[in-house]
Amino acid sequence: MNTAIHTETKDHYPTRNNDHTTVTKRRDPVVYGWDSEGPLSNSDLQTFDDTGYLSIEQLLSPEELQECREELERLAQDPASKNDEATITEAESNEVRSVFNVHRTNEVFKKIANDPRIVRRLEQILGSEVYIHQSRINYKPGFVGKDFWWHSDFESWHAEDGMPAPRAASVSISLTDNYSFNGPLMIMPGSHKEYISCAGGTPEENYKQSLVMQGAGVPDKDTLTDFADRHGIDVLEGPAGGAVIFDSNCMHASNGNVTPYARSNIFLVYNSVDNAVEEPFGPPKPRPEFIRSTDFTPAG
Amino acid sequence: MNTAIHTETKDHYPTRNNDHTTVTKRRDPVVYGWDSEGPLSNSDLQTFDDTGYLSIEQLLSPEELQECREELERLAQDPASKNDEATITEAESNEVRSVFNVHRTNEVFKKIANDPRIVRRLEQILGSEVYIHQSRINYKPGFVGKDFWWHSDFESWHAEDGMPAPRAASVSISLTDNYSFNGPLMIMPGSHKEYISCAGGTPEENYKQSLVMQGAGVPDKDTLTDFADRHGIDVLEGPAGGAVIFDSNCMHASNGNVTPYARSNIFLVYNSVDNAVEEPFGPPKPRPEFIRSTDFTPAG
Repeated sequence: MNTAIHTETKDHYPTRNNDHTTVTKRRDPVVYGWDSEGPLSNSDLQTFDDTGYLSIEQLLSPEELQECREELERLAQDPASKNDEATITEAESNEVRSVFNVHRTNEVFKKIANDPRIVRRLEQILGSEVYIHQSRINYKPGFVGKDFWWHSDFESWHAEDGMPAPRAASVSISLTDNYSFNGPLMIMPGSHKEYISCAGGTPEENYKQSLVMQGAGVPDKDTLTDFADRHGIDVLEGPAGGAVIFDSNCMHASNGNVTPYARSNIFLVYNSVDNAVEEPFGPPKPRPEFIRSTDFTPAG
Repeated sequence: MNTAIHTETKDHYPTRNNDHTTVTKRRDPVVYGWDSEGPLSNSDLQTFDDTGYLSIEQLLSPEELQECREELERLAQDPASKNDEATITEAESNEVRSVFNVHRTNEVFKKIANDPRIVRRLEQILGSEVYIHQSRINYKPGFVGKDFWWHSDFESWHAEDGMPAPRAASVSISLTDNYSFNGPLMIMPGSHKEYISCAGGTPEENYKQSLVMQGAGVPDKDTLTDFADRHGIDVLEGPAGGAVIFDSNCMHASNGNVTPYARSNIFLVYNSVDNAVEEPFGPPKPRPEFIRSTDFTPAG
């Protein structure tokens, strides 16, 4: 299958093909599992449908939180991990910023990623079994934590990974307290119901650059201003051990962090098994396996 | 008077003379005008004494706010203003970041700076007539607003401007809404009662660099972490037209801003006429008149 045919026959979310930004309505549902049994009530599902995200006040027990934090610290110091291509270091300081693929390479995070407390919620939202498309742990250090520009994850996963539809959601588990002042996740609630087709193409091997600094898949300022005016901006504060589940097409970002308080989290992307990745819709070569899993084995 | 004699006889707040940071108790009072008549009650003064700052929900009328905003926009576009040395532009974009000395060069801001609603409050806090040590309007643009590192203004004004004691306070009048997410002022409440003597010297003509990017007068990370743990961090949200008065020795900072919402304010520094600047305690040459006024005429 070549890219040209793929684009003509199946690309319902074209992006990076134009010289300007366009906004369209989302074609697909947000919630697939209304009235399903599990930890989420229909009222929870309604909140997710309306806003594009759902907060879980306490997901990890204090013991689990402690175990995850210790593993995070160990990995950040581990020379073997630091030299792995799945470990991304800060451009300036060479400090570890993210470690990818932890649901396959690390026993502590593998267990969390397959925990039924999480997986069952995702199955309810996505209305099917789910597999893990991507996993990582993120470090956002105090004093020098960099900002992350507004983007929809789905836009990247579609263009660069070949994810057909936004039938995917992310779970961010906080390993540190999120204050309004230490660069927490910001979401434009309701933005997930619109799709921003970005201008420009995707440079080859864009991921090597984009994991450290963003380039392709970035909405323009006028569109973002309009989105912020219409949807507002929610700042996701909350204690360590809590989590947020958010739709793959949420417009989200985070500010930098000059406070002493670091922000670390476990980031897990669950995709419906009925929405498994295909050939990328953008660049000819898919991203590597540690970013874009092709193991579609159901989680849990 | 040479710098060496000055330092020996009068420098109660030495800084930038060592290779490490030291913390001492503040020697001087915070509030000088207890039981004074004016807009501030003793309870307000107590809040200021305890936390180092005081918020005023609404200082400007909607009409005054509108007038100030229009003047701000006009100045940012004015080619004559842009070429003035009192106008500081962003290093990368060349956009206007601050315009200094507006209490002397601009009729709109001169009126605000001498407004009895402000001046009377400052006279109550500082217990004397007050003069304007520095004034400026600040633009913190949306999307690309830069962070500002933790610092005490007094540390700079003492070392670089020769301000003897922290008998001074700033008023920041918001011309835009301050949200937690658009890089608002952050203050460590209570930090004004301790003095951080910073390591290192002051490069000559440091102000040219420091107005754009900070260097000298920066506390170390261990001290800041200890301060944040002991004092906490207050995020100063509030609507346009409101203001905050804060002590010259407050430890404060602001994060960057990737949201579309710019932050602009009028920044006025009032010093007690009994605390007028002398020879600088740090570098041999004082900063220029537009940053460090030697016109000690009482405001109001």
